[in-house]
Amino acid sequence: MRERINEGFAEMFKNGVIMDVTTPEQARIAEDAGACAVMALERVPADIRAAGGVARMSDPGRIAAIMEAVSVPVMAKARIGHLAEARILEAIGVDFIDESEVLTPADDEAHIDKRAFKTPFVCGARDLGEALRRVAEGASMIRTKGEAGTGNVVEAVRHLKAVNRQIRELAAMDPAELGKAAAAYRAPIELVAKVRELGRLPVVTFVAGGVATPADAAFMMMLGAEGVFVGSGIFKSEDPAKTAKAVVQAVIHWQDPARLAELSKGLGQPMRGLEIAGLATAMAARGV
Amino acid sequence: MRERINEGFAEMFKNGVIMDVTTPEQARIAEDAGACAVMALERVPADIRAAGGVARMSDPGRIAAIMEAVSVPVMAKARIGHLAEARILEAIGVDFIDESEVLTPADDEAHIDKRAFKTPFVCGARDLGEALRRVAEGASMIRTKGEAGTGNVVEAVRHLKAVNRQIRELAAMDPAELGKAAAAYRAPIELVAKVRELGRLPVVTFVAGGVATPADAAFMMMLGAEGVFVGSGIFKSEDPAKTAKAVVQAVIHWQDPARLAELSKGLGQPMRGLEIAGLATAMAARGV
Repeated sequence: MRERINEGFAEMFKNGVIMDVTTPEQARIAEDAGACAVMALERVPADIRAAGGVARMSDPGRIAAIMEAVSVPVMAKARIGHLAEARILEAIGVDFIDESEVLTPADDEAHIDKRAFKTPFVCGARDLGEALRRVAEGASMIRTKGEAGTGNVVEAVRHLKAVNRQIRELAAMDPAELGKAAAAYRAPIELVAKVRELGRLPVVTFVAGGVATPADAAFMMMLGAEGVFVGSGIFKSEDPAKTAKAVVQAVIHWQDPARLAELSKGLGQPMRGLEIAGLATAMAARGV
Repeated sequence: MRERINEGFAEMFKNGVIMDVTTPEQARIAEDAGACAVMALERVPADIRAAGGVARMSDPGRIAAIMEAVSVPVMAKARIGHLAEARILEAIGVDFIDESEVLTPADDEAHIDKRAFKTPFVCGARDLGEALRRVAEGASMIRTKGEAGTGNVVEAVRHLKAVNRQIRELAAMDPAELGKAAAAYRAPIELVAKVRELGRLPVVTFVAGGVATPADAAFMMMLGAEGVFVGSGIFKSEDPAKTAKAVVQAVIHWQDPARLAELSKGLGQPMRGLEIAGLATAMAARGV
């Protein structure tokens, strides 16, 4: 029963943009721009990278203030494996919990057993195996990991293409090989069989990590994403309100290049961004 | 007889928080917050890491000043294997000696024979074998090692889960295999048999190393800890008095997520923390 409710909830986000916000003011800018949900944080990923140290759940008071400011669903992040942070987020009534590699993992060996929660979870994945393991643990929504806070889409592209390629391989596979595939993906054979049958993950699949411009967002939709998380890309840009609106419109009109060209005009400087090769911390490698 | 007294003493700490303090003022803040004991130190682990060099027993005068300032039990640290430091701490009347990997080990091959002391000892462990060897040497209390001074719970989680997993394995074991298990754990077979029978260590088991927030402390209790040491987490936070109170309350109310959410609000910045991968010194690897 829970599973159906949660999956239904994530369906509402389809073709939408979920934006990182750190204040009620930013949350209202995101809502006005047409964001389908906001992610309430103390710092956007670019600032988490710059600050270094250990990144933890945000102050529940700050999250609650953002929840009061907007009517769209509010998500918040718990550390990978941190059962107490997730329980706290559930207690304050967030609509979705992101068990996120953007925060410092609390458990190197296991993720939260999300089946034990009423609140739905979204989790990151770099490939089909990670996605299947997270769904098996109870995730109601999958997003690529990308490299958060870089404004660089190259990792998100890699992760989304890997998931899609592996799903196509599964669809073409001799059913007698399903046991072997389940072992390789370290996931339940029933779930692998279901993905083979559907030709897609059984949950809504978004892209996250490095999306910074309307063109980036449209590109992700061209590659088969069902929606986009934008982290640092909005509020690290020169004109957040305009950029937020343009990204939302780009996800809706991704099949219309002329429209995308108009949306991309006069936005000022996008977030500066980082080369992946020079990163001190590869967040995507956290929590496999 | 000694053994029973010491074990009884540690029992008093159950469901409590033991806080590192460096001054009488800090000790009073800890006591007012409800700490069940304080650990008297010259520097908290985060500062020991930052200072580098050799870390030794604190000045007994400083420890004595802290003992005079509070009525809760006072613990102090001796270097692993440093018989003289432990005898000095016993002579000044500390209530508990922590033979601690946070200080620079004085003996790479052996720990102190703690059975020869009247003062009870607490020792660190990363797995069941370490815990059993320390108990066999006379430790009255075990704590995980974690990585002290990092504000990062991931190692403490790993250590506590390892001990719990190995105890469950022992409980499921054919009794004919006990000799093999004792050899693998390098511990007396009688002690291994006792842990098998009890389904737990025969001494109070706390978590230490990286606990920085009320959510961290509650998480440790959810994983089966009987209490928590907080080192740098209190006095490296923005509001030590408020953080200390919240951590104590979180250990008591770990089963109440709504209460934990309230306790987590408005604490200001927690200690900054460190990535484990970037550490110059892995303290947990000291003294196996």
